[in-house]
Amino acid sequence: MRLRDCKEVLEMSEFNIIGKRVPQKDAVEKSTGAAQYVTDLKLPGMLYGKILRSPYPHASILCIDTTRAKRLPGVKSVITFSDTPQIKFGPLVDDWYILAKDKVRFIGEEVAAVAAVDEDTAREAIELIRVEYEELPAVFTPGEAIQPGAPIINPEYPNNVVSHFKVERGDVEQAFREADLVIGDEFYANQVYQAYMESMACIAQSDGRGHLTLWLPSQVPSKTRMSYAKALGIQPRDIRVIRPHVGGGFGAKMEYDADLICALLATNTGRPVKIVNTRMEDFEAGNPRVPMSFDLRLAFKKDGTLLAKDLKALAGNGGRTVYGPAIMSTACYRIDSLYRIPNLRADGRLVYTNTVPTACFRGFGNAQATFALESLLDMAAHELGIEPAELRIKNSFNNGDTSPHGWFISTSGLADTIEQATQAAGWNDKKRNKTTRRGIGLACTNHVSGNRGFYRPFDGSSAILRVGESGQAVLIQGEAEIGQGQNTVYAMLAAEAAGLRYEDVTVAQVDTLIGPFGLGSFASRGTVLGGQAVIAAGKDAKRKLLAEASSMFNIPVEKLDIREGVVCRLPEQTKMATVAEVASHYMFRQGGCPLTGEGVYVPDTVVPDPVTKIGNISPVYCFATHIAEVEVDTETGQVKVLNYFASHDVGKILNPVGLEGQVEGGVVQGLGWALMEDMVTVNGKVQNPTFLDYRIPGVRDIGKIHVSFVETNDPKGPYGAKGIGEPALNPVTAAVANAIYDAVGVRIKSLPITPEKILAALEHTCML
Amino acid sequence: MRLRDCKEVLEMSEFNIIGKRVPQKDAVEKSTGAAQYVTDLKLPGMLYGKILRSPYPHASILCIDTTRAKRLPGVKSVITFSDTPQIKFGPLVDDWYILAKDKVRFIGEEVAAVAAVDEDTAREAIELIRVEYEELPAVFTPGEAIQPGAPIINPEYPNNVVSHFKVERGDVEQAFREADLVIGDEFYANQVYQAYMESMACIAQSDGRGHLTLWLPSQVPSKTRMSYAKALGIQPRDIRVIRPHVGGGFGAKMEYDADLICALLATNTGRPVKIVNTRMEDFEAGNPRVPMSFDLRLAFKKDGTLLAKDLKALAGNGGRTVYGPAIMSTACYRIDSLYRIPNLRADGRLVYTNTVPTACFRGFGNAQATFALESLLDMAAHELGIEPAELRIKNSFNNGDTSPHGWFISTSGLADTIEQATQAAGWNDKKRNKTTRRGIGLACTNHVSGNRGFYRPFDGSSAILRVGESGQAVLIQGEAEIGQGQNTVYAMLAAEAAGLRYEDVTVAQVDTLIGPFGLGSFASRGTVLGGQAVIAAGKDAKRKLLAEASSMFNIPVEKLDIREGVVCRLPEQTKMATVAEVASHYMFRQGGCPLTGEGVYVPDTVVPDPVTKIGNISPVYCFATHIAEVEVDTETGQVKVLNYFASHDVGKILNPVGLEGQVEGGVVQGLGWALMEDMVTVNGKVQNPTFLDYRIPGVRDIGKIHVSFVETNDPKGPYGAKGIGEPALNPVTAAVANAIYDAVGVRIKSLPITPEKILAALEHTCML
Repeated sequence: MRLRDCKEVLEMSEFNIIGKRVPQKDAVEKSTGAAQYVTDLKLPGMLYGKILRSPYPHASILCIDTTRAKRLPGVKSVITFSDTPQIKFGPLVDDWYILAKDKVRFIGEEVAAVAAVDEDTAREAIELIRVEYEELPAVFTPGEAIQPGAPIINPEYPNNVVSHFKVERGDVEQAFREADLVIGDEFYANQVYQAYMESMACIAQSDGRGHLTLWLPSQVPSKTRMSYAKALGIQPRDIRVIRPHVGGGFGAKMEYDADLICALLATNTGRPVKIVNTRMEDFEAGNPRVPMSFDLRLAFKKDGTLLAKDLKALAGNGGRTVYGPAIMSTACYRIDSLYRIPNLRADGRLVYTNTVPTACFRGFGNAQATFALESLLDMAAHELGIEPAELRIKNSFNNGDTSPHGWFISTSGLADTIEQATQAAGWNDKKRNKTTRRGIGLACTNHVSGNRGFYRPFDGSSAILRVGESGQAVLIQGEAEIGQGQNTVYAMLAAEAAGLRYEDVTVAQVDTLIGPFGLGSFASRGTVLGGQAVIAAGKDAKRKLLAEASSMFNIPVEKLDIREGVVCRLPEQTKMATVAEVASHYMFRQGGCPLTGEGVYVPDTVVPDPVTKIGNISPVYCFATHIAEVEVDTETGQVKVLNYFASHDVGKILNPVGLEGQVEGGVVQGLGWALMEDMVTVNGKVQNPTFLDYRIPGVRDIGKIHVSFVETNDPKGPYGAKGIGEPALNPVTAAVANAIYDAVGVRIKSLPITPEKILAALEHTCML
Repeated sequence: MRLRDCKEVLEMSEFNIIGKRVPQKDAVEKSTGAAQYVTDLKLPGMLYGKILRSPYPHASILCIDTTRAKRLPGVKSVITFSDTPQIKFGPLVDDWYILAKDKVRFIGEEVAAVAAVDEDTAREAIELIRVEYEELPAVFTPGEAIQPGAPIINPEYPNNVVSHFKVERGDVEQAFREADLVIGDEFYANQVYQAYMESMACIAQSDGRGHLTLWLPSQVPSKTRMSYAKALGIQPRDIRVIRPHVGGGFGAKMEYDADLICALLATNTGRPVKIVNTRMEDFEAGNPRVPMSFDLRLAFKKDGTLLAKDLKALAGNGGRTVYGPAIMSTACYRIDSLYRIPNLRADGRLVYTNTVPTACFRGFGNAQATFALESLLDMAAHELGIEPAELRIKNSFNNGDTSPHGWFISTSGLADTIEQATQAAGWNDKKRNKTTRRGIGLACTNHVSGNRGFYRPFDGSSAILRVGESGQAVLIQGEAEIGQGQNTVYAMLAAEAAGLRYEDVTVAQVDTLIGPFGLGSFASRGTVLGGQAVIAAGKDAKRKLLAEASSMFNIPVEKLDIREGVVCRLPEQTKMATVAEVASHYMFRQGGCPLTGEGVYVPDTVVPDPVTKIGNISPVYCFATHIAEVEVDTETGQVKVLNYFASHDVGKILNPVGLEGQVEGGVVQGLGWALMEDMVTVNGKVQNPTFLDYRIPGVRDIGKIHVSFVETNDPKGPYGAKGIGEPALNPVTAAVANAIYDAVGVRIKSLPITPEKILAALEHTCML
């Protein structure tokens, strides 16, 4: 807790805190179990809610009899569609009701709900509800769903296509005609589950006057209120969201229907109600990844220059729409700021199916498309006889380029990450001295840091830094720490900008009643958009502290600096006061009003034109190169990841520990997707809805992960930084697929790359 | 929820909201039972604490054996003095330890404490602790305690006098020599209990890194942290106080030792701990009123002009010091701004006794002194043959006067309240046509609205008004609603100043992590000091809303006004937008940063000089006149209050419903004190520590209460207003005593005026 002296802090490098290895802000609470998640909270008089879910993938509801459930002692409320506001709503498409109206569209759809004094009673009451269904013909895959005569899931979309994204630049046909090499293939990125530790949970409480408080592990606490208010027929102002610790989200924890059921039960009973998904409910009715199949063609000159890309995508939306349309468009065109391709075409359809609704998952469509593109590039490199790394460098975007969709790439570290990763992996060596059944594969990715197209009313972020009377500071903002370490970065940025010590900055939990409207955690936006706002707030606080100190000591502001909690006189480097002394002087002079810095950041990004899709959506763009080194057991088809190398253009290393953690987490999650994870669904029913049957990587399933960073010091990033969350996962599947091809010569184009698929492919190879 | 139109809101009277009868902000929660108090809260893994208290009034502790308690299953921590930080502390005098060190000084003093999984186990463990005491000679009354040779309670104060307040103005001796009438007598204001509905309660939680969160029903959430940090050997920054609903305080809920015990148990166990006083503990070891005896002399000219006052006071501090010294000084000199008395002397001693420590209670010493002064004035009026009302008007301070202690009385409505009360009561009529056994009595009072001497580092208040994207506003401040309706007044002031609707303003619960440092609820300061800050915050918000609207519509600010949530164009009186539209425009233009108004109020008051005691401590001064009309049963001594008339100079009526409630509450509480309430203590042991034995007035014990107000529109008050909390109680005891004298000719000079005392006095009267 010692304050350093002025000479020491002034003569440190450019930054006092940025780039240092600091402990995560919530490390102690989380590792001791003291951190409270929604599941842990208990309000006085709280009831427990349970949801009756559809057992059929597609069926009409003929009648619901809740009489016996209502009679069960301890049951306080039983609700069905008629007890809801009966308003159609949805985050993007109004195809939700809080409880099913006339029919159900997927196994797990919410049909009725109960609040009771304990979970057992609630569960028993659910079993006492009788629903008569009439099964309807169902359709489970996008391919079947777009066939003429397929069962219609939403009458408003008679061909089952809920969104159809098209974009075209240049002259694609001509480019393909004139190309030296045209290569194409089909790829499939399957449906996977986010496997966050904390399942979906909500506590709702009504004040009896139409105001709701929701305790939610939400990635988007401010925005959620908009959709929920519409669903409930109230105003966003009537919903307060408090966000305790969150046990991971990875895209899933945005709008979720059970929250609204919880809210209705709380309103009905006048008591707080908690609903926590069982893990099985979370698998069967969560928000898994949008499964996508791609038909991708590329055209090259023989020197490797990319001439054209033609992408057809078909994706499964499930029975109602979460964020599928935006994910579909991302899959179709985000990747076009990775390599310079003058002629582009994409045509993506998102299709209703009688399966669980699909939603956001780290990578948001770009992860799916990257699997296809980076696999096909590897195939092209072989055809062209060009080193895969070379081929990518040749086509990569560079600093100051603008993509065909108007995205301004202020800095691109792509070529540098290829260089760094291949160096680290000993790429050339290993390529030259290939060992049997061992292989090495490379894949690249790009990503945004924020997405101006996601929420049209605004983009940006804001923060308030409150410096209290003993020098402690609280950062109040609306962005959402969900386990990614965002609060740690924010505390570092705030401390650096304001001249405080890292340990003196706390980040307040999000409370929409008090804090700014924050868009939240998606699009890898937290560090860049939130971070810029935090720096601005820190600078504003520093400016006020300097002004206060200047008047306290009658020294001009220019002759003062504040570093690590100490006010120093320049150029003498003598200590004038602590920040605590200056802040309490301010507070006690100002009727107790704390010294606060306010920071606003509004990026100069552009909402993409709805027709042309042109518009620079992100202030900075991230790049990365991953290299997987694998060994394949040709007897069993088992893949062992020996080493994994990830090099990321992060703009500037703010929090090295956090960056490493994010990349390692992304790689492990990507390895799970690449090699083992799959929501196996038969007739709309998830067959493996538990962690016994749905395997995610354990520590023995991953090799050594080598993480390195390229600093491009992007002028638009906070102290030069870029986002990290999603790019850490995007390229993993392709890197692994390419390595397997390198190891044993088989190309698996559908995820996950199971031993069975490898064995089958090996058999096929041998037979040739 | 309808918004009015511009013509309507612009053509309302000066104020849209002020002066209206609005529902209290928390009326629904409180009346439905939904409001959560500390007692209602339950944290995950929470333990229950119990305190072992001394059974002796004065004793050495020879040894404490906690072995058996620690062995009891379910017990998680047992602490004694050696487990505490062993730091001496106290709000004013450092004579506290968290747990008793070598000796106990009153029955109920905290000796050891336990945290266990439930209350029964904690209670059982307490019973298993063995303490060996050696009784010491004890002293129970201030009169005995100041005798030479009396047992010494605190060796640092060898004559048991913990504070001795002296003040003198003019030439008192000469004035008494030259007076036409000198009158003097002794009066006694007894020890009473605040009888709030919610007993003392605390939940403490440690984060394992030295930071504590306390959920406290505190009147002074920000300031409490200062004393508690000292006691715990940590920094105020390490303590966060969250204040849920509070079930009344009346002065008692400031520093309280059990909160610190709770904090230590939470730190020891790493789990949240709750301690809630039983009602008996609350009686025996709460913070009751400082009992005071007065020897008061007054000197008059025969025309009634007051020449001099000579006051000697002796007060009981109990076994350790809470706020007694400040209460003593208040009793000695606050009343000197009620009537012009050129020659003044006061000599007050606060004395340790082996009884429960005494503390703040509505009126803070002034209530005790008012009983003496207003009783003696009534006696003097009879001696002088001057109407009691006349006598007071003759000597009253007027607008613009400065008291002998330098208090600037910008406005005084004293004479007007006398006029209003006597009119309402039919005073002259009833005096002329006196009925047997019925009587009418009058008493006046003055009070502060804030006290610059209470907390020397600063005075004032500040507030932040956050106007959200749908026009809802949240007021963030650090003052403490404890049931008095302060949040309602603040919401009215904020709405009025900002141009919002009352129903659109919410007042956030106090959280010291987020909000301003607020001094809290004492000295009737909330409305004036907090209110001025709230108005300033509202005006700042309005200024920002107008600027935003001006730029939205390209209309100069001067041509716009905002009233009740509507932005109007002047002079056309046409509606341009709603506040919601302007606020969301601002927010979405500013990266989600809400439009906030910041308000600071620092009154031009002065810390009294420590030697001369001169200094204007309050921005405005309150005045009131009460008239009691009683009937005395001469057979039983029972007093029936027939009618009660209270007229208050409130400066300006902000919230009529709240004002009426405060006055009615103060009168009822005063009637309890006057006629029935008494903490009967024998050898340091409270004999009536339950509501069965300690009677407070029920609805059948009070007569009809008639409340009226005088508006002096004080230029220093918020929209002209003054405080109300304490003046509502101050004069009740004297008004009742004077009425009883008027009814049956007996003068009871010691509180409470029980039937026994009246009967005894009547007997004495008859014998003469």
